[in-house]
Amino acid sequence: MAVVVQNIARADQAIIDRLAAAGVATVHEAQGRKGMLSSYMRPIYAGAQIAGSAVTISAPPGDNWMLHVAIEQLKPGDILVLAPTSPCDNGYFGDLLATSAMARGCRGLVIDAGVRDIRDLTAMGFPVWSKAISAQGTVKETLGSVNVPVVCAGAQIEAGDIIVADDDGVCVVRREEAAAVLAAAEKRLAAEEAKRKRLAAGELGLDIYDMRPRLAEKGLKYV
Amino acid sequence: MAVVVQNIARADQAIIDRLAAAGVATVHEAQGRKGMLSSYMRPIYAGAQIAGSAVTISAPPGDNWMLHVAIEQLKPGDILVLAPTSPCDNGYFGDLLATSAMARGCRGLVIDAGVRDIRDLTAMGFPVWSKAISAQGTVKETLGSVNVPVVCAGAQIEAGDIIVADDDGVCVVRREEAAAVLAAAEKRLAAEEAKRKRLAAGELGLDIYDMRPRLAEKGLKYV
Amino acid sequence: MAVVVQNIARADQAIIDRLAAAGVATVHEAQGRKGMLSSYMRPIYAGAQIAGSAVTISAPPGDNWMLHVAIEQLKPGDILVLAPTSPCDNGYFGDLLATSAMARGCRGLVIDAGVRDIRDLTAMGFPVWSKAISAQGTVKETLGSVNVPVVCAGAQIEAGDIIVADDDGVCVVRREEAAAVLAAAEKRLAAEEAKRKRLAAGELGLDIYDMRPRLAEKGLKYV
Amino acid sequence: MAVVVQNIARADQAIIDRLAAAGVATVHEAQGRKGMLSSYMRPIYAGAQIAGSAVTISAPPGDNWMLHVAIEQLKPGDILVLAPTSPCDNGYFGDLLATSAMARGCRGLVIDAGVRDIRDLTAMGFPVWSKAISAQGTVKETLGSVNVPVVCAGAQIEAGDIIVADDDGVCVVRREEAAAVLAAAEKRLAAEEAKRKRLAAGELGLDIYDMRPRLAEKGLKYV
Amino acid sequence: MAVVVQNIARADQAIIDRLAAAGVATVHEAQGRKGMLSSYMRPIYAGAQIAGSAVTISAPPGDNWMLHVAIEQLKPGDILVLAPTSPCDNGYFGDLLATSAMARGCRGLVIDAGVRDIRDLTAMGFPVWSKAISAQGTVKETLGSVNVPVVCAGAQIEAGDIIVADDDGVCVVRREEAAAVLAAAEKRLAAEEAKRKRLAAGELGLDIYDMRPRLAEKGLKYV
Amino acid sequence: MAVVVQNIARADQAIIDRLAAAGVATVHEAQGRKGMLSSYMRPIYAGAQIAGSAVTISAPPGDNWMLHVAIEQLKPGDILVLAPTSPCDNGYFGDLLATSAMARGCRGLVIDAGVRDIRDLTAMGFPVWSKAISAQGTVKETLGSVNVPVVCAGAQIEAGDIIVADDDGVCVVRREEAAAVLAAAEKRLAAEEAKRKRLAAGELGLDIYDMRPRLAEKGLKYV
Repeated sequence: MAVVVQNIARADQAIIDRLAAAGVATVHEAQGRKGMLSSYMRPIYAGAQIAGSAVTISAPPGDNWMLHVAIEQLKPGDILVLAPTSPCDNGYFGDLLATSAMARGCRGLVIDAGVRDIRDLTAMGFPVWSKAISAQGTVKETLGSVNVPVVCAGAQIEAGDIIVADDDGVCVVRREEAAAVLAAAEKRLAAEEAKRKRLAAGELGLDIYDMRPRLAEKGLKYV
Repeated sequence: MAVVVQNIARADQAIIDRLAAAGVATVHEAQGRKGMLSSYMRPIYAGAQIAGSAVTISAPPGDNWMLHVAIEQLKPGDILVLAPTSPCDNGYFGDLLATSAMARGCRGLVIDAGVRDIRDLTAMGFPVWSKAISAQGTVKETLGSVNVPVVCAGAQIEAGDIIVADDDGVCVVRREEAAAVLAAAEKRLAAEEAKRKRLAAGELGLDIYDMRPRLAEKGLKYV
Repeated sequence: MAVVVQNIARADQAIIDRLAAAGVATVHEAQGRKGMLSSYMRPIYAGAQIAGSAVTISAPPGDNWMLHVAIEQLKPGDILVLAPTSPCDNGYFGDLLATSAMARGCRGLVIDAGVRDIRDLTAMGFPVWSKAISAQGTVKETLGSVNVPVVCAGAQIEAGDIIVADDDGVCVVRREEAAAVLAAAEKRLAAEEAKRKRLAAGELGLDIYDMRPRLAEKGLKYV
Repeated sequence: MAVVVQNIARADQAIIDRLAAAGVATVHEAQGRKGMLSSYMRPIYAGAQIAGSAVTISAPPGDNWMLHVAIEQLKPGDILVLAPTSPCDNGYFGDLLATSAMARGCRGLVIDAGVRDIRDLTAMGFPVWSKAISAQGTVKETLGSVNVPVVCAGAQIEAGDIIVADDDGVCVVRREEAAAVLAAAEKRLAAEEAKRKRLAAGELGLDIYDMRPRLAEKGLKYV
Repeated sequence: MAVVVQNIARADQAIIDRLAAAGVATVHEAQGRKGMLSSYMRPIYAGAQIAGSAVTISAPPGDNWMLHVAIEQLKPGDILVLAPTSPCDNGYFGDLLATSAMARGCRGLVIDAGVRDIRDLTAMGFPVWSKAISAQGTVKETLGSVNVPVVCAGAQIEAGDIIVADDDGVCVVRREEAAAVLAAAEKRLAAEEAKRKRLAAGELGLDIYDMRPRLAEKGLKYV
Repeated sequence: MAVVVQNIARADQAIIDRLAAAGVATVHEAQGRKGMLSSYMRPIYAGAQIAGSAVTISAPPGDNWMLHVAIEQLKPGDILVLAPTSPCDNGYFGDLLATSAMARGCRGLVIDAGVRDIRDLTAMGFPVWSKAISAQGTVKETLGSVNVPVVCAGAQIEAGDIIVADDDGVCVVRREEAAAVLAAAEKRLAAEEAKRKRLAAGELGLDIYDMRPRLAEKGLKYV
């Protein structure tokens, strides 16, 4: 049951990069408000905004052996995604693994567990979104799998899906929906620009979105 | 049961501004150690220190419609305070709503739920204290109320009460107690200054506050 | 049962300082993956990396009286360690106590409860690792003890044990094991340097650590 | 600031008893889906279903002194409601206090903290809804208040408000709304009876409530 | 994006019933230690042990409209599985819905949110595994989907997958793996019986499983 | 570092049995309000009340190998105490291990992790206090230690310390303090009996404990 899937399909890199530019909130709305990982997934430093193809890892609690196996499967532009098979906040990943992952073009790590060497990772510019920061070490005794479907922080992720991550959290986009989601996201961004100007000028959302009649119909009373 | 209270009383702006300068910890002590919201309410960026009159919002879980309604009720110097009717960490508020609120003079948001567009809000200088950071979107289907009493993060808040918020968290001051609390807070600040100098010079709190006799009386043993 | 132990043994200061330089993750591994406090203990600002001898405090919930007692027991290089006798997130400690502690050479505070005056503490450069940030005040009514063994955030700590703390969290080293742990930590740092270079050059951990045969033996399948 | 309000208004006992019979879920719906305490409030044993007038207690963390003061204020049919001024799971209340409260006609305890002597309380038939079960003892050093407004488990409660509690949790009804809420609750119970029969006979809610047109209008697709 | 998938494949009912008899712990081990929902999913009463085909529901927070839609899709032997699109502990389900579901042969409910009318559901013998017990009501305003893949309490569940639930929690078995998992589970049960007798007679697992040599090889020291 | 300490000292069995009869709350108070494990430790069934000598286990997350080793160290009257080296809710223990432990006279298990086969354990009358109920299985790959000091659910426990557990939770008594704690506990029980009668007769704690003067002195106001 411990397998490494070696050849995974990935989305077009140009699409992935434009999804990164759109950011998590916009991409999430553009695909119908789905795909968010739990809000407990937080970046180890502010300001990173990335997207990449998921190389997934299913790992036992307290055992980071499969990270070494997964790094061999990385291609430039990928993001590591680790889900433990039961809740665990151990520090599976630190600066040595980050050095190795960066050498293969990895853009970051999303881990529903802990990470350590925060200061080094920040200095290296290797972004991580995690459930915990913990120096608690792990063992290398039990196999897991690489590039199998995982549930990470409440979201289903398949290898090759696109991960978008920024200060607002982490979102997953199905690989086959990437182009459609990007189109919707960029349309949304364009529409927001016009609204932002009107709102900044003092117009109310109540008027811009014509909400007053429906509020009255639902029974809102002003007193 | 869905109402918008339009004319609320507010405290004197000069008092509010001096409460902001006193800060959360001092104001909280000055009013008898009451009024703190739960410690899970954290600022999205460090360094903001504000006070303002509460415009309160009671909203259903996952529904941010009432924010648009509340923004119309804002006056310069106000702070939005949103309490969901049941626990929810969705991202009710982002950069478009912040643009609109700022255009009306709003100083910030206190929300017992989630917020998104963190990077934009930080760049705009619009401070938020929240339970979560989440890009998870909301709907606009169910009414709530504006400027009714709410329980937000464990504290009772009435419209027009003064919210004080800084890196230590969020505190509420009853509108009718504002002047008395300010007087006590400023007195406390003055007293602290003298103590700080003595402590910095190496004197002990044990001596400054004359604690040794009472410690002995209670039975403290040095071994 | 309320006692203050006045003369505690401390480790050699040079060893303590070199443990600080090694950092939490390395020290924790060097002593066999033990000694970490819970991952909910987070620094109030990034970048501090310290070590010092523990002056321990067992305090009732919501009562910070013993902090004044403990400060008298501080020697230069010490770190205050406070464990409440039951869970509490009150703000036991703020800028006045920090001023007093710094005047006696204290390097920082580790508290399984809350802290306040975050902005001041940051400006003063007084680092704190805590479970919560909270301005909620405390009383001075009930005795506790100083320099007795405590369980702080899940770890057993004796007075005079060495506390190491940085952005990865907090670790405790038994006083009598300090020299041996330091030796193992510095050996580990030296070994990591060589590996970091090989990993940065693109070599895989799978090869450097010769993992492939054991993975195959355990049954890992590549598909 | 430590006060005991001695003469509080109470609702009519017959109304209170009929609210008990209606139960938490029905009463909560009947008053517009408001008034629920947090779902972490759980009964110490199954099957109790009570209502009574709230005698409220605001108590410091880890200090149960005010319970003795509050018991003197009890009248037959009352329910004790304790809210600590900051989060605490200590066991404030056990079999001796229950013996005293029962001697004065108290129907139960709602406490946003801990309770102990569970086996005795169960044998005595004294129901408690609490956040925690804990034998951790408390002190009697610091004053609080009795019969002042409190926020308990996220709900605002005034002395004399009606508490309804059963296996589904705890709900508060404003004293002045008691009669109206009871009328709505009993109407609701009558209406449910007819629906229960139709549903038991196999009719669908989709048809009984005529939901199909609105589902279609909103865009639901059957595939 | 709101869809109801009407015709789903189900596993053989005889296999499902034997999985129920095997129980959660055995089934989970038999399929390679996968498929457990989070341990926060607890039964509302002790002693129920069921299995059935999943009819899945993806619902907005605080909105139970889709439960009415899902009940029409039930066939005898099915289990309702509800996952909110963001965390929510509202009471989506009570005795009226249970009456309707039972009329269609439904065996129980698994819900990553709240449930109410606990006493009635217990009396009816309708078992529920939930994250919370809460009377907090919901609205019927926003669509969701029925019989689409969901992530429920951390586990991916497809419509028609087999849910096994007992006092140990909830486990999901892929529909296409049901027969193989059952075979492994029943083999495991048979093997356990022999071991139970030897252990009851005082033999040690150390000897029955021949663990001593491997423990020694790993370095275990007896002192 | 993986060791099994084979010969541990135990307290007198008669003392242990009388501590069991006194119960957790009384024992905890009798030793000065110390020794409680966290309130999240709950019994798997109501009504068990035991005491015994601790056989301690320090185990890696998700690895139950050391339980087999520990069972060989059990003597009649002992209680197993398992603390994982980092937080984990896996089901380390089920009916087969319980069968083996009971065959050696073990009275119960205290585990800061998960347990499974709840229904069987209940039927067998083998009590367990745990952080979680979970069927999630574990591996047998990494060593831990037996009869070394552990921190379990926030309390320091040495092998041979006395564990007292009932519906109120779990308390640890130092082996060398057992006789003194028992004497204090039994004295306390005798004193409570007289107070219970007076309270049942309607006397107030305010009068029995003569609290009124001190309340007045502290400033309590009746209004």
